[in-house]
Amino acid sequence: MNPHLHAIIMAGGAGTRFWPASRSLRPKQLLPLGGDRPLLAATVDRIAPRVPAERVYIATGAHLLEATAQTVPSVPREQLLAEPAPRNTAPCIAWATATILRRDPEALIAVFPSDHFIADEPAFLAAIDRALEGAAQGCLATIGIVPTRPETGYGYIESGALLAPGLRQVARFVEKPDRARAEGYVAAGNYLWNAGMFFYEGRVMRAAIEAHLPEIGAFLRRADEAALRGDEAALVARDFSALAAVSIDHGVMEKHDRLAVAPGDFGWNDVGSWESAWELAARDGDGNALPEGSVAVDARGNLVVDLTTTGAHKRLYSLAGVSDLVLVETDDAVLLIPRERAQDVRAIVDALKARGRSDLL
Amino acid sequence: MNPHLHAIIMAGGAGTRFWPASRSLRPKQLLPLGGDRPLLAATVDRIAPRVPAERVYIATGAHLLEATAQTVPSVPREQLLAEPAPRNTAPCIAWATATILRRDPEALIAVFPSDHFIADEPAFLAAIDRALEGAAQGCLATIGIVPTRPETGYGYIESGALLAPGLRQVARFVEKPDRARAEGYVAAGNYLWNAGMFFYEGRVMRAAIEAHLPEIGAFLRRADEAALRGDEAALVARDFSALAAVSIDHGVMEKHDRLAVAPGDFGWNDVGSWESAWELAARDGDGNALPEGSVAVDARGNLVVDLTTTGAHKRLYSLAGVSDLVLVETDDAVLLIPRERAQDVRAIVDALKARGRSDLL
Repeated sequence: MNPHLHAIIMAGGAGTRFWPASRSLRPKQLLPLGGDRPLLAATVDRIAPRVPAERVYIATGAHLLEATAQTVPSVPREQLLAEPAPRNTAPCIAWATATILRRDPEALIAVFPSDHFIADEPAFLAAIDRALEGAAQGCLATIGIVPTRPETGYGYIESGALLAPGLRQVARFVEKPDRARAEGYVAAGNYLWNAGMFFYEGRVMRAAIEAHLPEIGAFLRRADEAALRGDEAALVARDFSALAAVSIDHGVMEKHDRLAVAPGDFGWNDVGSWESAWELAARDGDGNALPEGSVAVDARGNLVVDLTTTGAHKRLYSLAGVSDLVLVETDDAVLLIPRERAQDVRAIVDALKARGRSDLL
Repeated sequence: MNPHLHAIIMAGGAGTRFWPASRSLRPKQLLPLGGDRPLLAATVDRIAPRVPAERVYIATGAHLLEATAQTVPSVPREQLLAEPAPRNTAPCIAWATATILRRDPEALIAVFPSDHFIADEPAFLAAIDRALEGAAQGCLATIGIVPTRPETGYGYIESGALLAPGLRQVARFVEKPDRARAEGYVAAGNYLWNAGMFFYEGRVMRAAIEAHLPEIGAFLRRADEAALRGDEAALVARDFSALAAVSIDHGVMEKHDRLAVAPGDFGWNDVGSWESAWELAARDGDGNALPEGSVAVDARGNLVVDLTTTGAHKRLYSLAGVSDLVLVETDDAVLLIPRERAQDVRAIVDALKARGRSDLL
């Protein structure tokens, strides 16, 4: 285990796509989707063979600090970084990187989203090792997921020349494509999904931020000075929210010249909707993912999630003659949609906002 | 108001078709379907302009006695007749008729199911008046519902010659027909639905039972003697369950020669399934019958019934992109079926029986 390797886990997501399970104070990364543990806890566990919890930093929202601490008690409390407001990934990664560099100027850093699912963990760790090789060579490195379908909801990475076994140059980052382009990318074979994982030497990223995002660079210098004085928290509270909300992809990666990508194929799922949750759930022979003891008669492809406090694991769900539906139950709200329209959860959340029902969001 | 007019309300139904709302101890007639009061209470109220509660007799199962008493507290407790076991309508009507005749040998009796819905109550009362005219002339009379569709789930009554305005002879009773026959009946115009309502002079029915169902006639004589001795309850407990389970239609009406039928058109609904409950429910412009405050996005024709004790009227139901579904929620069981497959509730109840989950039935 490399003692200089640290991890940043980005856990600031709000995530309305899993309403009514997800709420503003219980976002997606705190939910046990695709397993029996919250996605954030699974993320910390998954990287433990490379980065122990004492070198893990978690960036989250100030309002989520307490729930986050309870979800991953193994991560030292002072390594939970509370953003006063979400400013996208560049300010988040920049601040966390600066924080780690104060502790270890030689730090090698791996950045992970907190809310994805990975089926094949050994293959995932192998991809991390390859990406870290790129980082050790001074590149800003990433893992690109080998695409399994012409997905239009993700950005792509076009890979170029081989740098080392399992590690390639990045030819370019590509925005979310239309269907025809996505099909072309999958057919071409050298395009990968951008999964938001980054690997770099801390000082390389710090220099890249200074070069490409000078406003954030200046903030980091003020934060370092404030940290020396012992009042970084006040500085962050005052200045963080004023930073431009820019992604690390747009703000740094796309402008950088030394980039590496490690293609990865390890059963990655971004758990983007209830449809994904159904894909990841244990299903019976008819494709139903139902609470234990449920009765299904001529019913196929349904997902039922019972999060009621009184009913969970005790209520009997019975379905007859229905297919491909999602039913999610909580104590105060119930969702019923077709699986293929899982994105319509947004429309419901918008309707609740319009009605002033923030108590349910 | 005719002081000799008494009513028998048959409230012994088990009714699994409204599971999970209906249970063995809370059958359909005790549920507020099609209104805000239990069907049984609505039945008692509906006939009150002709028969006050003190002349109403309710036949029910021994296990339902307490719940029935609570549902219709205006009916004197001693007029709730507890059948030790369900033996279909002939033993039920025979015993209740004998009980009423002991109180009033001149009794005119009206028999009603406890679990139907009627929209136009004045028209219903008018039909009762016409049927009672037939009863006063010594006929066994009934009300036949003017059919609105070629229903194959009901028996029909072929009406004959006019006896009086709005009152006809019965040509014959017809079993549930196939689709082609049902269409012929509706086209013919003189066929009516048999809705299980009967009107007669008590002594005429008593004589008809003696003539056509001598075994039940003998039971009634033993019951009368036991009542004189003050131990009718013991006699009923011992002998009632041994009576043949036969319907009043097969056992008496079809064999009798003086029959009358009053055609009725008053928005009758037998509340036979969740589909009927949807038909009777208040619906929005998209045909949805949802709890107050629900969110429906591109959703049509759905019925949601919330009977949870913690959630009722407080949980928010949100539906998007679903049509013609029925979702019924109780504390311990949830049902999700398409409206047009409302009959599949039986399959679910059967599955629960097979699993020994009588706690949910």
